[in-house]
Amino acid sequence: MEAPAEQSKSALKKAEKQARLAAEKAAKAAKAAKMVSLPVAGGKKTDEIIGITNSKAENFSAWYQEVVLKAEMVEYYQEISGFFVLRPLSMHIWNTIRKWFQGHIEEMGVEETSFPMFLSKTSLDKEKDHVEGFAPELAWVERAGDKKLEVPVAIRPTSEAVMYPYYSKWIRSHRDLPLRLNQWNSVVRWEAKQTTPFLRTREFLWQEGHTAHLTEEMASKEVLEILELYAGVYEQLLAIPVVRGTKTENEKFAGGYYTTTVEGYIPSNGRGIQGATSHALGQNFSKIFHITVEDPQNKGQHVNVWQNSWGLSTRVIGVMVMVHGDNKGLVLPPRIAQLQVVFVPVGINKNTSPEDKKKHEDQMDEMRVTLKKAGVRSESDWREGYTPAWKFNDWEMKGVPLRLEFGPKDAAKEVVSYARRDTGEKGEVPIADLATKIPELLETIQADMYKKAEISFREHRKMITKWDDVLPSLDEKNLVLIPFCLDGKCEDRIKELTTRADDNRDVPENQKVPSMGMKSLCIPFEQPQVNDLVPGETACLNPECKGKAQKWVMFGRSY
Amino acid sequence: MEAPAEQSKSALKKAEKQARLAAEKAAKAAKAAKMVSLPVAGGKKTDEIIGITNSKAENFSAWYQEVVLKAEMVEYYQEISGFFVLRPLSMHIWNTIRKWFQGHIEEMGVEETSFPMFLSKTSLDKEKDHVEGFAPELAWVERAGDKKLEVPVAIRPTSEAVMYPYYSKWIRSHRDLPLRLNQWNSVVRWEAKQTTPFLRTREFLWQEGHTAHLTEEMASKEVLEILELYAGVYEQLLAIPVVRGTKTENEKFAGGYYTTTVEGYIPSNGRGIQGATSHALGQNFSKIFHITVEDPQNKGQHVNVWQNSWGLSTRVIGVMVMVHGDNKGLVLPPRIAQLQVVFVPVGINKNTSPEDKKKHEDQMDEMRVTLKKAGVRSESDWREGYTPAWKFNDWEMKGVPLRLEFGPKDAAKEVVSYARRDTGEKGEVPIADLATKIPELLETIQADMYKKAEISFREHRKMITKWDDVLPSLDEKNLVLIPFCLDGKCEDRIKELTTRADDNRDVPENQKVPSMGMKSLCIPFEQPQVNDLVPGETACLNPECKGKAQKWVMFGRSY
Repeated sequence: MEAPAEQSKSALKKAEKQARLAAEKAAKAAKAAKMVSLPVAGGKKTDEIIGITNSKAENFSAWYQEVVLKAEMVEYYQEISGFFVLRPLSMHIWNTIRKWFQGHIEEMGVEETSFPMFLSKTSLDKEKDHVEGFAPELAWVERAGDKKLEVPVAIRPTSEAVMYPYYSKWIRSHRDLPLRLNQWNSVVRWEAKQTTPFLRTREFLWQEGHTAHLTEEMASKEVLEILELYAGVYEQLLAIPVVRGTKTENEKFAGGYYTTTVEGYIPSNGRGIQGATSHALGQNFSKIFHITVEDPQNKGQHVNVWQNSWGLSTRVIGVMVMVHGDNKGLVLPPRIAQLQVVFVPVGINKNTSPEDKKKHEDQMDEMRVTLKKAGVRSESDWREGYTPAWKFNDWEMKGVPLRLEFGPKDAAKEVVSYARRDTGEKGEVPIADLATKIPELLETIQADMYKKAEISFREHRKMITKWDDVLPSLDEKNLVLIPFCLDGKCEDRIKELTTRADDNRDVPENQKVPSMGMKSLCIPFEQPQVNDLVPGETACLNPECKGKAQKWVMFGRSY
Repeated sequence: MEAPAEQSKSALKKAEKQARLAAEKAAKAAKAAKMVSLPVAGGKKTDEIIGITNSKAENFSAWYQEVVLKAEMVEYYQEISGFFVLRPLSMHIWNTIRKWFQGHIEEMGVEETSFPMFLSKTSLDKEKDHVEGFAPELAWVERAGDKKLEVPVAIRPTSEAVMYPYYSKWIRSHRDLPLRLNQWNSVVRWEAKQTTPFLRTREFLWQEGHTAHLTEEMASKEVLEILELYAGVYEQLLAIPVVRGTKTENEKFAGGYYTTTVEGYIPSNGRGIQGATSHALGQNFSKIFHITVEDPQNKGQHVNVWQNSWGLSTRVIGVMVMVHGDNKGLVLPPRIAQLQVVFVPVGINKNTSPEDKKKHEDQMDEMRVTLKKAGVRSESDWREGYTPAWKFNDWEMKGVPLRLEFGPKDAAKEVVSYARRDTGEKGEVPIADLATKIPELLETIQADMYKKAEISFREHRKMITKWDDVLPSLDEKNLVLIPFCLDGKCEDRIKELTTRADDNRDVPENQKVPSMGMKSLCIPFEQPQVNDLVPGETACLNPECKGKAQKWVMFGRSY
């Protein structure tokens, strides 16, 4: 996947052309929409600015914050900084992901649990490596009501140290293995860095799975099964391509054995973003928490169990907004959209007779019933005092995948007119075909959104074999695949070498050159099959490094 | 419902007889089970005590704690007192309730949200009445990492003060009403009183719904719709009868307008228990948080919205254990049991040939497939080194509603033998009929469990019209319906008057007379239709009270 050389070139060109055409169409549609986006005089909400005012290309971070707020995904929690309210549109996405993932892990035999949100200082102190990573971000409760607690308790940043004392208690024999538990909860990490809705927040929703196995092999198998489910959340639900791989030692989970990850890509700024991680903990925690069983192969011998932990958080929603959104606002993949189709009546005005209006309404209701039976989530926008154009903008901002317009002219032709949110493409569907054509169209949108994102990611994953090409490639919004020695110190040095002195403070944002150094994102499972890298012979790309490259490693500026 | 006089007497008698027979059978079965409950010599777990050692009748609270622990519903969180781990068996019940309730509120148009778990001191200080109730139980975070927070934050004990500032922001016009949001989360109330798994814990899972309406009428309608769903959770899922009613002023939600409730009954100790509450908040909070809209009837006039909040917590699981459990352990209503049917192979021993054993296994697997298709959750217990009798005990302790035994004799007759967990009743089902008979049997168990609990509750709700009868009636494990003036001070006094000096400390637990005074549980919606109470004329039952009775009010010792 990482090697474009392997792709069929003609297919690629065709797909590229489609994507470009789609982008052009979208741009045109956006322009057209802006022209009619003025609020209606006399309407209730004329004082509100409708539409997104920041440009995704020119001021990405302002654009993002505007979109998540105006599309009503989140609300800033004014009372305490770094916290956000997740509104129904976000919760629908999260619950869709939850149901899908829950169904799959239930089939695997993972059961649900709920551990307390607090962690005592005593448990925490057991695992130094692990705890060191989280200590600066722990929220401490030292008082309840007016009483000082005898021992302060921390709110979990993750639950290894909360849960594993019980794994030691519950796992008495190899027959109790595998033990596989998962919980859906929120965790608190009191970040000092600037927070961003979904991506970095001081409290976030996630699932955390914690499992124990008899052998390394069994544990490793699960690590990958879960990673594949995480990839499925991105690819199948959110229409986002990811690269599967292993984290380097520097970037792995503190206290674990190795970490696997799915990594995404944000085209607008060329940054990589960690999608979700599935960790093999090895026997590190089972030694600390004394989780052992009698070896079924060697009676009398005790062995430490092999553990995994894996988590997927509401961060996925932020990645989705960043990848698919455009200058008109949110663009939702149909599979996770709370509202997949919005009906907007057109051509109905003061001159329309009450009878005709009633008839029109009835027809739209009928169509909604048809769609509901076909499993499509739709609504009709009958709000008064707003023009159709205002409504179009409003629903586009909120990312509804498909708009169906219905007016007297459509009625006469027995069709509805549609407009796709992702491409702006317009067309007609015979009313008689709604039950089949609309679900098809939604799946087409889903597939096209994935395709577009996949092409963009593929084109911006560059194999680099000369050090001097690194920075220019990053500046062209690429992630880079480089021959790398896998050494932690070399990795630190690469970050320093690619960090620019921040000397462009006064340059307008859209002309700024990023100063951020690159870090390793993952060692992709799918290594390019080319002769440029012979493990142990080819030099590491870092010109200061004396080591030999072991793998192609994906580096990039990142979140 | 409160007036047995209204019931058809013959139907009642029949039901009572059935219940008594069922109880006798259960007792016999329990005795028989105890006799064969010794663990197998040489088995892995001979050091563990199998079965429940405390008697439900003689030491109810020890029995309860033993059951929830040994049935693997909860684990005590050793690290911090008052917290408990919910294990898969509990989470399955909670998730079943969650799905059911979520489906119903979605249909009503309630949407999901997720607000932060923290509450700033500033927001808290806004609503004095409300906050006073919770202040002694608030857990305060004053430090994150090594840094002291500028303003301390409390963990939510409930989210009125977290959410309502945003209701004020989001509700701009009457068109934004109703606003109906719900969240599933955990809340923290650092109780000073002794904690009990599920019933009183310092953290618990719940759902909290918060809605805003244009008129009192619309709000009131929803209060009752939600209350009916809460009753449904108890009656339809947990097989537990409840009494619907209104709380007195003394017992209503702090800061609210009025509180409706479903109240349950624990036969073993005759105590009432609050099941779940649906509160009308009136305009109290909307005035404090400035949640207003322009009155659609009077342009230019602003009106405060009418709000509700309603919550159902994991407490329901504890009530279910207390009502249905017996001396052998947990008894689960089939609809909420993670495992509805357990297959136990019998008559297979060392003399059985491998071929016969294999054939037997295959037959059991086939039956499980049949049941799965019929929507029944089943498992086979193939554990080696345990006798069937040991397994019977183990699954009875864990409350599995139906045990299917299958041995060579059954195979020859083409039947499986069953044993009901609730009554101990045994019988046979032809293998050919499994797909229809087992689901039927499970529904019969569900219905019988409800019936038994319903009779017990009905028989222990006594209408009392003489003050001197109150205490003896409470001692006979009744809740009492009394003519009451509804005055708060009178209610306080009734509690004092019914509290005994605790002078029986050295008496064995099963002979102790409870010292706990009674409090009001609810004003039942269904008032007895008898002439004993003429509102405003009949005297309040409290002999010291000069007031007149307004309603029959249900009082009792309670949780």
